[in-house]
Amino acid sequence: MPRPTDQLRALVESYLAELALAPELGSLEEPMRHALGGKRVRPVLCLATGDAVGAHVEGLLPAAAAVELVHSFSLVHDDLPSLDDDSERRGAPSVWARYGEATAILAGDALLVEALRLALTYPTPAVARELTDATLAMIAGQQLDLEGGVELDRLHALKTGALFSAAVMCGLWAAEVPAREHPPWRAFAAELGLLFQIVDDLLDGDGYVGEVGEDGARRLVDETAERAQARLAEIDADTDVLASIVDDLAVRTS
Amino acid sequence: MPRPTDQLRALVESYLAELALAPELGSLEEPMRHALGGKRVRPVLCLATGDAVGAHVEGLLPAAAAVELVHSFSLVHDDLPSLDDDSERRGAPSVWARYGEATAILAGDALLVEALRLALTYPTPAVARELTDATLAMIAGQQLDLEGGVELDRLHALKTGALFSAAVMCGLWAAEVPAREHPPWRAFAAELGLLFQIVDDLLDGDGYVGEVGEDGARRLVDETAERAQARLAEIDADTDVLASIVDDLAVRTS
Repeated sequence: MPRPTDQLRALVESYLAELALAPELGSLEEPMRHALGGKRVRPVLCLATGDAVGAHVEGLLPAAAAVELVHSFSLVHDDLPSLDDDSERRGAPSVWARYGEATAILAGDALLVEALRLALTYPTPAVARELTDATLAMIAGQQLDLEGGVELDRLHALKTGALFSAAVMCGLWAAEVPAREHPPWRAFAAELGLLFQIVDDLLDGDGYVGEVGEDGARRLVDETAERAQARLAEIDADTDVLASIVDDLAVRTS
Repeated sequence: MPRPTDQLRALVESYLAELALAPELGSLEEPMRHALGGKRVRPVLCLATGDAVGAHVEGLLPAAAAVELVHSFSLVHDDLPSLDDDSERRGAPSVWARYGEATAILAGDALLVEALRLALTYPTPAVARELTDATLAMIAGQQLDLEGGVELDRLHALKTGALFSAAVMCGLWAAEVPAREHPPWRAFAAELGLLFQIVDDLLDGDGYVGEVGEDGARRLVDETAERAQARLAEIDADTDVLASIVDDLAVRTS
């Protein structure tokens, strides 16, 4: 019986709270932990994926946490003054605003490397490979965003979709699901990343809302959620909790 | 018969020149390649180590390049205005000075991730594990350097020694040398990293020169080079080229 998302989220929270960072990082630990706030959408998705195929959930936690640390790394660097210049994040000062730019650059670097260390605790390098591929896509997306003029679909696929896919795929690799069973999961993950992003644009009133209007974006949400559910229905696994994640992402208000 | 260092360096140069970066990185490729100049000390050390134990040198190139990319990543971020504020590097504008801070942050991130992608081309995750451990040490060292008041030995071990060790250890892992044979190599690598750093301080007139004077630092160079050679002599491998690397590092003038 798969665990509901609130149980999975609680597991992620306590794992992250107790996560031992490299002791030599010293004073970088505080800004790194400051950066680790959030809704845990990606790590919960990672756990729910592995849980759906019957894996031992505790064994998935390093992979789930690795995905969340990559997400945090990207926010810490993207918030920097020379990039998005965001001094607030989740109602608190962003890392650079609280700890200074130098520390934010190094704390972001350290979050990325700690993420990979977690991914490398598995015997297979595949978990870490998924994460590096997704991270390169995110970095490329951020650069394209700075340059401007790039298509929205492409930008969202790089900046958001890649890490959503990695969350699902890392859950599968950590659960030792063989590669031949991955394609329908990858298709599901792609829809889920798109769904998350369109709802994000609705909440922020930008992106797709600027392209197709608010009603158009709401229709896109419904269509994408439907496709995600259809993909899920094709998969031979206990996908009820994943289906509830699709529903929740479609109606989220924050 | 191990190859001399100039042949190894030529192999590194042509491998790096032809290295395919993730195509989605687009305009980040130019600043990343700009960052990849240098003397190739670490990748040559990596190749010479694997060559000394009889590995096929071409198979070591991804590991050697990964070490060099981590080195480049660290320089790109350390040069940033909020960190060391260096606008020049190797007689040319540093990455941020030429391409702007935002691009330098992202290019540094991308160099680090590409390094790990290369390390992850091996079946064992051990190459990537060595690199992540060394990278965390380097980040920690840079943070301690910014804060000041840290002991020089400790600082150098983190900022320089860790990646020298990783260069040797990645060469061994890529050559599939079993872990039980690693300890004398690790001891050799530690001396070599220290040697490199003392000579660096002599060339820059800082660090150890400030602590023990120029003559004292020269004595330290001789003692450290002697210990490195002694460590090497204990190892059952064809270490002539590595011995010549020790000699070259002890007398280098740039």
